[in-house]
Amino acid sequence: MPQNTDVKPWAATVLTLFPDAFPGVLGASVIGGSEKSQIWSLETVDIRDFSSNKHRTVDGTPAGGGAGMVLRPDIAAAAIDSVPRNGRAVIYLTPRGTPLTQNRVKELAAGPGVVVFCARFEGLDERVIEARQMEEISIGDFVLAGGEVAAQALIEACVRLVPGVLGKIESTVEESFEDGLLEYPLYTKPREFEGRAIPDVLLSGDHKKVAKWRKDKMIETTQARRPDLFKAYTARKEPNTGDAT
Amino acid sequence: MPQNTDVKPWAATVLTLFPDAFPGVLGASVIGGSEKSQIWSLETVDIRDFSSNKHRTVDGTPAGGGAGMVLRPDIAAAAIDSVPRNGRAVIYLTPRGTPLTQNRVKELAAGPGVVVFCARFEGLDERVIEARQMEEISIGDFVLAGGEVAAQALIEACVRLVPGVLGKIESTVEESFEDGLLEYPLYTKPREFEGRAIPDVLLSGDHKKVAKWRKDKMIETTQARRPDLFKAYTARKEPNTGDAT
Repeated sequence: MPQNTDVKPWAATVLTLFPDAFPGVLGASVIGGSEKSQIWSLETVDIRDFSSNKHRTVDGTPAGGGAGMVLRPDIAAAAIDSVPRNGRAVIYLTPRGTPLTQNRVKELAAGPGVVVFCARFEGLDERVIEARQMEEISIGDFVLAGGEVAAQALIEACVRLVPGVLGKIESTVEESFEDGLLEYPLYTKPREFEGRAIPDVLLSGDHKKVAKWRKDKMIETTQARRPDLFKAYTARKEPNTGDAT
Repeated sequence: MPQNTDVKPWAATVLTLFPDAFPGVLGASVIGGSEKSQIWSLETVDIRDFSSNKHRTVDGTPAGGGAGMVLRPDIAAAAIDSVPRNGRAVIYLTPRGTPLTQNRVKELAAGPGVVVFCARFEGLDERVIEARQMEEISIGDFVLAGGEVAAQALIEACVRLVPGVLGKIESTVEESFEDGLLEYPLYTKPREFEGRAIPDVLLSGDHKKVAKWRKDKMIETTQARRPDLFKAYTARKEPNTGDAT
């Protein structure tokens, strides 16, 4: 694809103690291919380069005691300040953060890129999170060994929405979380698999019926599996009539 | 560390169209090191090897129409059936799945391992999910280009809990989601950073006060950031007295 040199690529900068963990999964598939095509860019910064001692230590014991080590705020700040922000959000990946949503992914994908800070050990000193106004994001209610895989998930989710990354075949129009619902079930050939048939309606050629079946399945699946999303969906669909002006 | 040869390593098998995306982040840090020490094992299976035609295609158009391609159930089943299960859960990573929690991670880490299926394209034919009783898990309410990075997150979360992987320094005793709460804020040296001091109580040496401050912060942070977790926490702490027998 010819590149428009006036357009800056969507830029991801990752601050990490494990630069070798990158590009990892971001080097594979269309995501990796589009980085080679300069539609987006990936750069890593080794936090350890900002250590002030010859042992390259970056952590200290937690004030107040307890197990584990904490990443020092001065070293984290020096690493962050070495990166040109260019209007990008500085994101700290932590289970204490706001859960990542597809809406936030869309906003980030539409912007200039992201600066992502990956901690290891117990975590990062609270003061640098405040001082650098880092956006705390969680990819889920589970604990990882470090922020690296969360950074890759966040970046992959954004990059696939950057124009030019996915072809027509990998449409992003109809997918989970559009309209706040989970996607409908999918079927393809063969027509029968181990005695299980494709639902008749999908083979009827009646587009209206297919659309209705799919919407019904989206609602049914969301209600059964994710009462939280379903509640938010119905609240949007049936706004409180008491609010009428 | 000397290995006990009677103990089988915790085993992760990943079915993927992009085996090159592995080990990715799972090759770095103590996670990668402990795989080399045979505390756990990682194996990939290329789904494309189970295609029945010379073009190695694995997908078809969605029944009922629409954009994108769907992974065929017969090919997915052949790939899954090639893997010895050995009592392991077969997990399909999809935004339609049950959100992954630290409790599920603990259960999986305590078991023999996981078989993880990564889809690309629009997703996987519903019939093979049913026929092979796959456990549908979501790592979050966002859409990825494929299941590979989600698989790495799931496996990393499990492996860090496998005995022998983390040393004493990387304690897993006190961390987010213990007791269903987010963790307290962390501080380390220097004592003052850009005019911001470590809270006095943490330097008081009074362990009881420190513990109280931390618990208060856990509750306060959870209430402010995650009303959903806080509600579940208070429900557990104050069980409905109407249920008394």
